[in-house]
Amino acid sequence: MTGFDVLTVGNAIVDIISRCDDQFLTENGILKGAMNLIDADRAESLYDKMGPAVEASGGSAGNTAAGIASLGGRAAYFGKVADDQLGKIFTHDIRAQGVHYETKAKGTTPPTARSMIFVTEDGERSMNTHLGACVEFGPEDVEPAVVAASKVTYFEGYLWDPPRAKQAILDCARIAHESGREMSMTLSDSFCVARYREEFLDLMRSGTVDIVFSNRQEALALYETDDFSVALDRMSRDCKLAAVTMSEEGAVIVKGDERIRVDAIQIRELVDTTGAGDLFAAGFLFGYTQGRSLEDCGRLGCLAAGIVIQQIGPRPLGSLAEAAREAGLI
Amino acid sequence: MTGFDVLTVGNAIVDIISRCDDQFLTENGILKGAMNLIDADRAESLYDKMGPAVEASGGSAGNTAAGIASLGGRAAYFGKVADDQLGKIFTHDIRAQGVHYETKAKGTTPPTARSMIFVTEDGERSMNTHLGACVEFGPEDVEPAVVAASKVTYFEGYLWDPPRAKQAILDCARIAHESGREMSMTLSDSFCVARYREEFLDLMRSGTVDIVFSNRQEALALYETDDFSVALDRMSRDCKLAAVTMSEEGAVIVKGDERIRVDAIQIRELVDTTGAGDLFAAGFLFGYTQGRSLEDCGRLGCLAAGIVIQQIGPRPLGSLAEAAREAGLI
Repeated sequence: MTGFDVLTVGNAIVDIISRCDDQFLTENGILKGAMNLIDADRAESLYDKMGPAVEASGGSAGNTAAGIASLGGRAAYFGKVADDQLGKIFTHDIRAQGVHYETKAKGTTPPTARSMIFVTEDGERSMNTHLGACVEFGPEDVEPAVVAASKVTYFEGYLWDPPRAKQAILDCARIAHESGREMSMTLSDSFCVARYREEFLDLMRSGTVDIVFSNRQEALALYETDDFSVALDRMSRDCKLAAVTMSEEGAVIVKGDERIRVDAIQIRELVDTTGAGDLFAAGFLFGYTQGRSLEDCGRLGCLAAGIVIQQIGPRPLGSLAEAAREAGLI
Repeated sequence: MTGFDVLTVGNAIVDIISRCDDQFLTENGILKGAMNLIDADRAESLYDKMGPAVEASGGSAGNTAAGIASLGGRAAYFGKVADDQLGKIFTHDIRAQGVHYETKAKGTTPPTARSMIFVTEDGERSMNTHLGACVEFGPEDVEPAVVAASKVTYFEGYLWDPPRAKQAILDCARIAHESGREMSMTLSDSFCVARYREEFLDLMRSGTVDIVFSNRQEALALYETDDFSVALDRMSRDCKLAAVTMSEEGAVIVKGDERIRVDAIQIRELVDTTGAGDLFAAGFLFGYTQGRSLEDCGRLGCLAAGIVIQQIGPRPLGSLAEAAREAGLI
């Protein structure tokens, strides 16, 4: 088994992306900026109301794997699609990016997961995800040799939504740590944190997770506080390393008593925030697995995030490695 | 039956869009700038070589219908998809744009047509179309009341590729003319013109088609000449009205001895030429069916085309009506 820099694990999703105004969100009971979980009926009725859309492979951890590969890193991915047209599109896109992806597609029902993403004029995205085939993902989908061969295994907190994925993650953590590797997670979404707060804290405090990715809202939600510095201090005690994004204010890296601030990059136009956190994690983990300084890891994260928010869709259309070279970061 | 401004008829296609360099086109035998027809095996092998992509509903005449609706016109569309996920996406997108679309989807084999579109750095698109379910389109798909209720029925020359579509078009022409309506076509592609030159000329000279859309290359191919003014003169004798696009040089409208030149709009960045001709036709026909001057029709066409080439994908993501208002054209 060739070595990998990063293995990512998550819900394999195709994004269906459209623009709307704030009123549409209100009228249709969509929580702005959040990942709203929806069932098949709601997915159908909401699609009927959605404007013309474009489709792109997504899924938080899938985007991160694609970003790492685009930077030149060796990436692998576990996630479940169905054997249908959207599943074939997902599979094509992640493999075409150079990511190792061999999770077996399962039947045609339920179908491949899709997320209807509404982008408002402020660039904010509001997601409505029907998990579909992702509910079938479980321990049998773990490729032990891939976990053992990956410097870091990274997973999304969203995996606590489908029923059997968490067992797969615990298996990954055991294999990774037995192989002297590290585990990392993203808290995913502040509402996801609210659903699984105690479990996420337990993952951190038990050492199941070494490196945590979060944004400001998720960090505050995790510690049920309004005080960001309190949240960072508590996070520094609960995990070895954390990287917390703060939208246009960049990010802060937290390691023990260290607080390393990194600025966001200058952007020309905010188009669509979809994938921002995923690509920050991609840049950071690429740097981390190349042995770069934490500050450089943060800069690579901010660069990748800054690029993806200037386009529609969750994965950069151009080469991140080229952009990083132009920015003098690699 | 409510009246329509324009009914468009064409191959119903979902676009799969990726970037590549010129070398990729050469290595894979893709004719640059053209619509290359491919079979199922070639579609599969080419998709294996294609980079990560995004998907968007397309199809030349479908894009035109969407553009007319986006301008505020009343549009209808005939075209055949399969009863599969891509077919549902196509159906959703054109209906969500406000276009009347009721052509019956047919089974799951062959699947909904897809076109793999490779966009090179110069913004040029090279298309590779697998016609799939489009080969099932025929006279039984003509909704006579819709044809009779549409001021203009517009179809794509590409319809001469599938086996039974031309009979549907001849039926449309009969109904339209019996109802005192007009017929319009686009020559589609210079290689398409080469395949069906005599038939296209016959459609024009017999009066089956009243209004012709073409680009410079197609006009030259139609008359097998290198002299553009000769092509325009001959075109003026073969149809009542023609609008010929000339890329960054705008367009020329040809009516008898009249030659009306319209400038292209200033663009910030050429991203992807996919849909340029389709949207020119949309703007022109919107103006035409609103009774605007031919010069204004041309301006509306150049505006819509100029907008779509500054984004990825063949249909404008924003409102064309808003853009036309800002430009003082409506």
